[in-house]
Amino acid sequence: MARTFIGDLKEHVGETVTIKGWVSVRRDQGKLVFFDVRDLSGTVQAVVLPKSDAIETAKDIRVEYVVAIQGIVNERPEQNRNLKVKNGDIELKIESIEIIAPAQPLPFDMSADGFNLDLTTELDHRALTLRHPRLQAIFRVQAVIIDAFREFMKSQRFFEFQAPAIAPATAEGGAEVFEISYFDKKAYLTQSPQLYKQIVMTAFERVFSVNKVFRAEPSATTRHLTEIVSLDAEMGFIDSWEDVRDMSEETVRYILQQVGEKCAAELEFLGATLPTMIEKTPTLSLAEALEKLGAPDDKDLNPEQERRLCEIVKEETGSDFVYVYGYPTQQKPFYVYPNPTQPEYNEGMDLLCRGVEWLSGGRRINDYRQLLEHVEKWNMDPNKISMFLEAFRYGVPPEGGFAFGAERMTMQILELKNIREASMFPRDMHRIDHSLSEGES
Amino acid sequence: MARTFIGDLKEHVGETVTIKGWVSVRRDQGKLVFFDVRDLSGTVQAVVLPKSDAIETAKDIRVEYVVAIQGIVNERPEQNRNLKVKNGDIELKIESIEIIAPAQPLPFDMSADGFNLDLTTELDHRALTLRHPRLQAIFRVQAVIIDAFREFMKSQRFFEFQAPAIAPATAEGGAEVFEISYFDKKAYLTQSPQLYKQIVMTAFERVFSVNKVFRAEPSATTRHLTEIVSLDAEMGFIDSWEDVRDMSEETVRYILQQVGEKCAAELEFLGATLPTMIEKTPTLSLAEALEKLGAPDDKDLNPEQERRLCEIVKEETGSDFVYVYGYPTQQKPFYVYPNPTQPEYNEGMDLLCRGVEWLSGGRRINDYRQLLEHVEKWNMDPNKISMFLEAFRYGVPPEGGFAFGAERMTMQILELKNIREASMFPRDMHRIDHSLSEGES
Repeated sequence: MARTFIGDLKEHVGETVTIKGWVSVRRDQGKLVFFDVRDLSGTVQAVVLPKSDAIETAKDIRVEYVVAIQGIVNERPEQNRNLKVKNGDIELKIESIEIIAPAQPLPFDMSADGFNLDLTTELDHRALTLRHPRLQAIFRVQAVIIDAFREFMKSQRFFEFQAPAIAPATAEGGAEVFEISYFDKKAYLTQSPQLYKQIVMTAFERVFSVNKVFRAEPSATTRHLTEIVSLDAEMGFIDSWEDVRDMSEETVRYILQQVGEKCAAELEFLGATLPTMIEKTPTLSLAEALEKLGAPDDKDLNPEQERRLCEIVKEETGSDFVYVYGYPTQQKPFYVYPNPTQPEYNEGMDLLCRGVEWLSGGRRINDYRQLLEHVEKWNMDPNKISMFLEAFRYGVPPEGGFAFGAERMTMQILELKNIREASMFPRDMHRIDHSLSEGES
Repeated sequence: MARTFIGDLKEHVGETVTIKGWVSVRRDQGKLVFFDVRDLSGTVQAVVLPKSDAIETAKDIRVEYVVAIQGIVNERPEQNRNLKVKNGDIELKIESIEIIAPAQPLPFDMSADGFNLDLTTELDHRALTLRHPRLQAIFRVQAVIIDAFREFMKSQRFFEFQAPAIAPATAEGGAEVFEISYFDKKAYLTQSPQLYKQIVMTAFERVFSVNKVFRAEPSATTRHLTEIVSLDAEMGFIDSWEDVRDMSEETVRYILQQVGEKCAAELEFLGATLPTMIEKTPTLSLAEALEKLGAPDDKDLNPEQERRLCEIVKEETGSDFVYVYGYPTQQKPFYVYPNPTQPEYNEGMDLLCRGVEWLSGGRRINDYRQLLEHVEKWNMDPNKISMFLEAFRYGVPPEGGFAFGAERMTMQILELKNIREASMFPRDMHRIDHSLSEGES
């Protein structure tokens, strides 16, 4: 009998169907045996009646067994309905049950409510804990975030390209870069697709990418990973940096809307509330922001000030989001566009929400000579970015872009405590799949 | 005046519009000056009449200048129409023209027809050559291939996950792996997401990923890159390996259909013809294939035999595609499922087209004990794949999957001669952006 997906069972009330899936829960109530069975599309409660032919097989079945069940889809009696969960109003009366694959006893409680591992144990057993509804919910939300980014970009005529992960020996500076043995030479893992996306923008005008970036920061905080998924966009023919702000705002708005629409059950399960984005997100220059914070002489926002600023803006406008622009030019990378009338401040911007940065971007320099001047001022070797510079020799319109990390966005939307919860296979200085033991090399 | 995208001009015949874009071509014909102007959406011919106010500015404008043009959209007279190209039946009569950004003189001919660089020069100048219609066409087709893969997977309820690029020090073997300095330890770049996609399959049942993989093969052939985009799928609850074949076949069919539909102009420009996929792609066991080739005692297909087999199948059935399955078990990785009645042959498969492999996959072992037996037979250390093995301790249904490289698929669909043409920023043993000079390290 052809398989019916569990998520489609409601269309088959009164019919006999076959489902296939994993046993999430086994409950024995008197002579009745209940199973919660899940497949990729959902979960359903299935019941074996005492006199059923299936009762003998049912006795052997434990949690995480893989089974095929034939049964009748029934509506539950009024008093047994749970309208909070999908399929909470139906139940499968089991006629026969087949064990497709057994499971060993679980090393810990994997039930929806009983699951209560410290993060280290959860990560050590990611191959198993990925089956838990909490982790399933987190990564389903993450997939929607990434997909919504792509969808919105494409709706705005952005072209998706594949940014490289391996960078030349000389392109990236700083200690926070991973070095690769590249045959008899050395190469590095990209920290950002920034220069590549600007190059591709000069040919395709509006571009985006979903690609890995790598940071060798020796920090084991709740916010650091060594490998992250970077969502990047870059667009030509802007009139001002505000065009970039607007595009990034509408991108985030679309992502939130999609998560709200497609992941209502996941948000409910995780107890997460989407932040409020009002019609026009408040936008402050750094000077205005510092003024508000009573620290007009500061040069940047510290984490405490970011938190406080978000609180103030929320109180004043109801917005959980706030843009801050106009940072000191010298603090930012060479390609950021300086304000023409106040060149000591630039047209870079950050989007803050709930006290932390969600996204950053801004206008970039598009004029070749101005770029060369900055390269010199920033003490960079132009030969080390010659492919990038070549792109700007040949007609580049005013342009800008933005970027954010998929894990960071997932963490913030879901109010998770540790970014490792938002990466399926998190890598940090102490862990790649498992803990890196001291002796290993 | 608000910008109109060039691709939308046909909706504005008779109206005055403003376009913004790059000058692809400048033609002086007597007192008339013609420009081909392109933006992200298309190209249009624009003309400056001799008495126009724009004629003075037009004199300064050269190829790759960025311009804003105000003008009237006119239908071309019958005899000047070129119905083979988009916008070939309209023309923009320029009223005013503004130079947004100048361009330096080009180092070589970038016109659609005049472009004729050897590949090395083309790659050395990728920042500029990406603007050429040939390269634009290739990467637009590639974006459609990748997108079509995702679309089809999602339509079949597959879940997209992000496979890691950094692998533990001990997980991968062989000399063809790149080593990373990972703080005070060592790590490696993943050669394939194989084990990760199988893990995620045990939790999400049907999964796919679009991720980078890395091969340190010291080969500088026309078919080797060190960094490629791998398109991977894995599915549980198969009845047999044929379910995997069918899913991969429908995936390729959908990709070809999407490329045909969305990239007709690109295929025409590149002179490429899509291969023919008949209703049911011929499927041969390796033994049957060798029989057909008159080499019944061989143990595998060599490249010449692959070419010949495709020719024979094409002649016999009209199909450009052929599946070959049932390779000797010991020649393939430990996780490939052996045929239960003939365990010396496995249920792995390759999809060949036009003489080469396009895709490979097959059924995998889902039984934990059988997997452990294979680990032992293959002389592998189970501790080095402990996360993978853990996933299989707990109820895994019969499963399989497939994978293909985006660059290889692009190259084959477009009949390109060198895979470097199908990678925007190709990396090989001699090149990362630019040639790696001998002294560099």
